[in-house]
Amino acid sequence: MSKASSTFDQKLLTYKQPVSQYLSSIITKEKPQSLYEPMQYVLSGGGKQLRPVLMLLTANAFGGAVERMIPAAGAIEILHNFTLVHDDIMDNDATRRGRPTVHHKWGIDVALLAGDGLVALAYESLARTQTDRLIDVHRMFTECILELCEGQALDKEFEVSEDVSMEAYLEMIRKKTGRLLGLCTEMGCALSGGSKTDMVALRGFGESLGIAFQIQDDLLDITSEEKVLGKDFGSDIKRKKKTFLLIHALEHGTEAQRAEIRKEMQSEQISRDGIYRIRQHFEEIGSIQCALTTVQEYIDTAEAHLDSLHRDISTGDLKNFLRYILKRKF
Amino acid sequence: MSKASSTFDQKLLTYKQPVSQYLSSIITKEKPQSLYEPMQYVLSGGGKQLRPVLMLLTANAFGGAVERMIPAAGAIEILHNFTLVHDDIMDNDATRRGRPTVHHKWGIDVALLAGDGLVALAYESLARTQTDRLIDVHRMFTECILELCEGQALDKEFEVSEDVSMEAYLEMIRKKTGRLLGLCTEMGCALSGGSKTDMVALRGFGESLGIAFQIQDDLLDITSEEKVLGKDFGSDIKRKKKTFLLIHALEHGTEAQRAEIRKEMQSEQISRDGIYRIRQHFEEIGSIQCALTTVQEYIDTAEAHLDSLHRDISTGDLKNFLRYILKRKF
Repeated sequence: MSKASSTFDQKLLTYKQPVSQYLSSIITKEKPQSLYEPMQYVLSGGGKQLRPVLMLLTANAFGGAVERMIPAAGAIEILHNFTLVHDDIMDNDATRRGRPTVHHKWGIDVALLAGDGLVALAYESLARTQTDRLIDVHRMFTECILELCEGQALDKEFEVSEDVSMEAYLEMIRKKTGRLLGLCTEMGCALSGGSKTDMVALRGFGESLGIAFQIQDDLLDITSEEKVLGKDFGSDIKRKKKTFLLIHALEHGTEAQRAEIRKEMQSEQISRDGIYRIRQHFEEIGSIQCALTTVQEYIDTAEAHLDSLHRDISTGDLKNFLRYILKRKF
Repeated sequence: MSKASSTFDQKLLTYKQPVSQYLSSIITKEKPQSLYEPMQYVLSGGGKQLRPVLMLLTANAFGGAVERMIPAAGAIEILHNFTLVHDDIMDNDATRRGRPTVHHKWGIDVALLAGDGLVALAYESLARTQTDRLIDVHRMFTECILELCEGQALDKEFEVSEDVSMEAYLEMIRKKTGRLLGLCTEMGCALSGGSKTDMVALRGFGESLGIAFQIQDDLLDITSEEKVLGKDFGSDIKRKKKTFLLIHALEHGTEAQRAEIRKEMQSEQISRDGIYRIRQHFEEIGSIQCALTTVQEYIDTAEAHLDSLHRDISTGDLKNFLRYILKRKF
């Protein structure tokens, strides 16, 4: 590890620690137990807390007093956890961060209500932020939640749709993954007194970063044979998920290639050999190369947003963050 | 119908209409269809919209410009609908306001996400309110949502608990039913420039009204043999719900009476005769009389809160509302 990246890792930890501490003590009530126990379970589940860290890095780049923004950073992490708890119900996922999901541990009713409690707690935490821009920040927060719901709705619609265009897919991942990262950077900028133009640029940076991250996630699922991010090799294919690669291949393959991919995907249980055959098609059609190129394009867009800012603003940490998030090898 | 009550009915309609109109046009997007169609379905489902009307009546009593508060009143109704959609999932209810519930029509995943969308929409609507007290109102709103979650959690816990005290029951219905009515009156007061003391009194009025309403609902379920509120006679008993009457009877009955009630409640399917026998026990133990007395006590408390206000404030409409809500005959 280079010295620069080690220093940056240290910096991430410096931002993460107060948020973790804040989140571990935000719930002071114990009863009703069926509400607060699962909420506490979720908030003490660890995770890298990349979103609040990104918010604080942005706030710091604009010269804000980061220590006053912990409640806002916490609000973003709580919001993120709310979406995870509810998405896990919808996706019927059994584990998250190496532990049973809330609905798997306590049942759907408890998870549903714990999620509702978390969204209210997120707003409560947000309202604790000392800022004269609280109303603006509230509006950003709410607008983001609506778009996150839209993203999740599109994702679920795509699961049962035969015909998803690349344009629709990119819009879905912008809402589902990009939007929340865009909120982090937009809010960090707003809370440090950034201008409207700065906020637009920063939100663009966060969203592009999120889209690049998601496409890379699609790629890693099929290019890395090690277990990545707690996912098995080819898990997206096994779950018949519409990914960048599948959509590209079905848009650009020959009729024969498309028919073969569709046939493979129709098997009840897709074997490891089946996954290799599908990956072979993705390579031949150029889907993997196109995904790599597209990730790079979104990285370039993200950096261009930063470069559009006034040069007094120190964007070094944000560029480091971008590299840190996307450094995973294929 | 007396002239006074007919005039009041007309007044309720005058407040209800702009809210209905507002709610029917608040959703402007059609896609993603799996998100916005069920949200629209819920908001166009009618209902008396008593909560926004109560907010506007309160605002008017404090001399506020009611026409500017429609978005806030709408926010309360949207919030109410969010809780209904999620509660219906947890309670596995198939119908609501004479129509299929969202999860019954579209499945749990869609209902879960539509509820999430509604809570965000409620905040969006709230943020449209023209007021210099937006931050305070936001805080009230959030605090209320957390308590509504607590109320629902307690209600679900009580379903599987053998031993629920009257104190715990009253706290549950305060949170589950009283709290939202308390938000209506507190917000109406706040938006019309009421003082902190006024807000406390108004919230007390709304909460007491809500508790009286819920105990009356428990009573009507077993005293009125006609179908009330879309519920069948004795439906609470059939569903083994902990009601005021059951809790009182199990706290105050003789050992023999308690054993008989428990035995009746244990039947897989409780017959009409079984319901009559349980009601007979409730009468003999004095549970029905106690419920009637308790409803009256909460009505008195509610009125006392109004009478504590400065006499310049015209509380006539709020007292009419109280009578209107509780006029149902036993």
